[in-house]
Amino acid sequence: MSTDPSPAAYREPPVFRIGVLGRGTVGSAFAELVVEHADRIQRITGLRPELSGVLSRSSGDFSQILEASDLIVELIGGIEPARGYVLQAMRAGRHVVTANKQLLSQYGDELFTAAGESGVQLRFEGSVAGAVPVIRVLQESLAGARIDRVHGIVNGTTNFILSEMARLRITFDQALAEAQRLGYAEADPTDDVDGRDAAAKMAILARLAFGAPVHLDQVRYDGIRQITPDDMEYARELGLGLKLIGTAERIGEALSVRVHPAFLYPGHPLASVNGPFNAVTVESAAITEITMSGPGAGGPQTATAVLGDVVSAMIPPASPPEEMVELPIVSDIVSAFYLHLEVADEPGVLALVAQVLSTHGVSVKSVVQKGMSEQARLVMVTHPVLESRFFRATDEISRLDALRAPPRSIRVIEEEF
Amino acid sequence: MSTDPSPAAYREPPVFRIGVLGRGTVGSAFAELVVEHADRIQRITGLRPELSGVLSRSSGDFSQILEASDLIVELIGGIEPARGYVLQAMRAGRHVVTANKQLLSQYGDELFTAAGESGVQLRFEGSVAGAVPVIRVLQESLAGARIDRVHGIVNGTTNFILSEMARLRITFDQALAEAQRLGYAEADPTDDVDGRDAAAKMAILARLAFGAPVHLDQVRYDGIRQITPDDMEYARELGLGLKLIGTAERIGEALSVRVHPAFLYPGHPLASVNGPFNAVTVESAAITEITMSGPGAGGPQTATAVLGDVVSAMIPPASPPEEMVELPIVSDIVSAFYLHLEVADEPGVLALVAQVLSTHGVSVKSVVQKGMSEQARLVMVTHPVLESRFFRATDEISRLDALRAPPRSIRVIEEEF
Repeated sequence: MSTDPSPAAYREPPVFRIGVLGRGTVGSAFAELVVEHADRIQRITGLRPELSGVLSRSSGDFSQILEASDLIVELIGGIEPARGYVLQAMRAGRHVVTANKQLLSQYGDELFTAAGESGVQLRFEGSVAGAVPVIRVLQESLAGARIDRVHGIVNGTTNFILSEMARLRITFDQALAEAQRLGYAEADPTDDVDGRDAAAKMAILARLAFGAPVHLDQVRYDGIRQITPDDMEYARELGLGLKLIGTAERIGEALSVRVHPAFLYPGHPLASVNGPFNAVTVESAAITEITMSGPGAGGPQTATAVLGDVVSAMIPPASPPEEMVELPIVSDIVSAFYLHLEVADEPGVLALVAQVLSTHGVSVKSVVQKGMSEQARLVMVTHPVLESRFFRATDEISRLDALRAPPRSIRVIEEEF
Repeated sequence: MSTDPSPAAYREPPVFRIGVLGRGTVGSAFAELVVEHADRIQRITGLRPELSGVLSRSSGDFSQILEASDLIVELIGGIEPARGYVLQAMRAGRHVVTANKQLLSQYGDELFTAAGESGVQLRFEGSVAGAVPVIRVLQESLAGARIDRVHGIVNGTTNFILSEMARLRITFDQALAEAQRLGYAEADPTDDVDGRDAAAKMAILARLAFGAPVHLDQVRYDGIRQITPDDMEYARELGLGLKLIGTAERIGEALSVRVHPAFLYPGHPLASVNGPFNAVTVESAAITEITMSGPGAGGPQTATAVLGDVVSAMIPPASPPEEMVELPIVSDIVSAFYLHLEVADEPGVLALVAQVLSTHGVSVKSVVQKGMSEQARLVMVTHPVLESRFFRATDEISRLDALRAPPRSIRVIEEEF
């Protein structure tokens, strides 16, 4: 193929130019990895990776960097100016690698359309679960499988907090303070502890798993602020572990995508995922289930995921984005529940509660009753039931004279329904 | 781009022709999956997958099938005629997808060279851990990471047997019979229970993790026939679980690849992998660790992995095989050990044993001693030590007058050394 008359002549290898937007933890770690692995990447791809420019708040010019790059790595985060830069880069024919979950979960349609129209790659492994390759597995390994459900622990901050609450029997506030001290939680932890960060990631995973355009606004989410040490204690008695679980599943020809705290039976593959780790389980009839776990987003992990995407973009043309199918979002789903009631310690209360549950079709699987002088505590786990039925039952229970505090409920994920 | 004068004219989509060698469980499951997912694969790839022929022992002609195919799926297993067919297919410019671990672990160099020379893809996700995407993750996601170690439970038969021995407190023979009854073990279970199947898979994983040409012959392996219910009982007392673990790791500028039974501390990500499941943990400084788990090889799982490979081959050109680096194989490595001794129940025996261990530099981490009328049982766990030192120590211990049975030892994998 060579027309070089001198076969032994040394030639510079062709270069692949990477422009980086953002100079934070991930951006810096990424820049270091590129230098460290340049030889290896050249061996794999035949191209030598080079940083063509880095844009930070105080230095660099986007247009110049774009002009000088074959691929743009977006690590600014948030919506603007990231969205504008990413769209501009793709329309200029540049591949884009990003770890920006807010952007993908809110402007996914726009971004994927732009990538498709421009014939460039948009890769985003770093947006969910750091270096744990959930995106690639959903997009490529399982291309031949019909996916039924994805369960994920996709927020390391809340998983660390819940693990510490269980391990040390401390309150949410104490565990949060510890997480902040260790750098696992930000000064303003709202997005993490309220479940919004996990919801954004589940919107991205649902899009890939089901080929449906899921937006963050369609994901229901609850956080973990309301979880008490008491809940953890009862969970232990019932043999359950508490996690903040994201779920995306097919229900008939519709979808449900949601994030909420849930108890897991010990046999569940996510039950043993502790500390700041992330894990995702993918269920499909053909493969039963696959679980992937590892440290959640951290500078080096996310940077490794970003570099994996860059290396992939250096080799093959993108898979054309699969045609999207509109699937409706289900609002009412079937769950098992943990139900915690503070009641007057008098005869007939359990019977009364059981009667209300039964009226609404809620069937009790196990129950623990504890007398505490003036009042009693009833903790039970139900069989799976339509959530709307369960909440109608607890609503009615909350109005019983014997109730001493509002009912508290948490979903329970069983190994098999 | 179209030269068709009638834009609305219906055109047949271009076809991608798949020839299948082998009509066993995986082959049949694969053929069904292709038909079931043909529409979806056409949406993803723009090509319609079609079976161009199936070769079985009694029907079909290889040359005809080869001629009529864009890609050959090899599911015959074993060395010949699989090796000849695969080489012939690649040299004829056909991509090959195979799940044949024997072939890859013994003729890997020849096969990868042939793929590289012919410019075709050789994909083999189904050869290790069924649909658990360890191959793809090592080849693609972690292309930007320097891998330090791979730990795997890569044989479902032995993991099932060990799980049942622990759960039901039964013997190896009883658990093997149960595994055979449930179809988790073959009538001749030798390759599985002696560790050779796991060794072949670790040779494949080591090749990918380290870019080094590792051959099955370079993998040391032990099986699980010698494990007793007693070992399991002590393990439980020490808080340990027993697994057949494959390990491939860098030690300086050399490699060690091996398979042996090992105890895992409860925090280890592989400790909770039970039953016929497989799991692989990849460790790298940048990412700490990633664990992937799921059902091991079964017809539908392996067929799903094979189909994922076929879909990938329909889209992009292969990553050119990375240049291989020769890395020496280490023979002596550092391990912690469980040591089980039956000794005379007389004063000074523990001191004597401890003295021998200490002479060889083996330091004891925990010890349990149990009197049993005439004799006593000493069970201990050591700190990590060079294996050669440990075996010199147990060799000397075995010659002590106080010994009532040969020493028994099993490696212990600690969460961190």
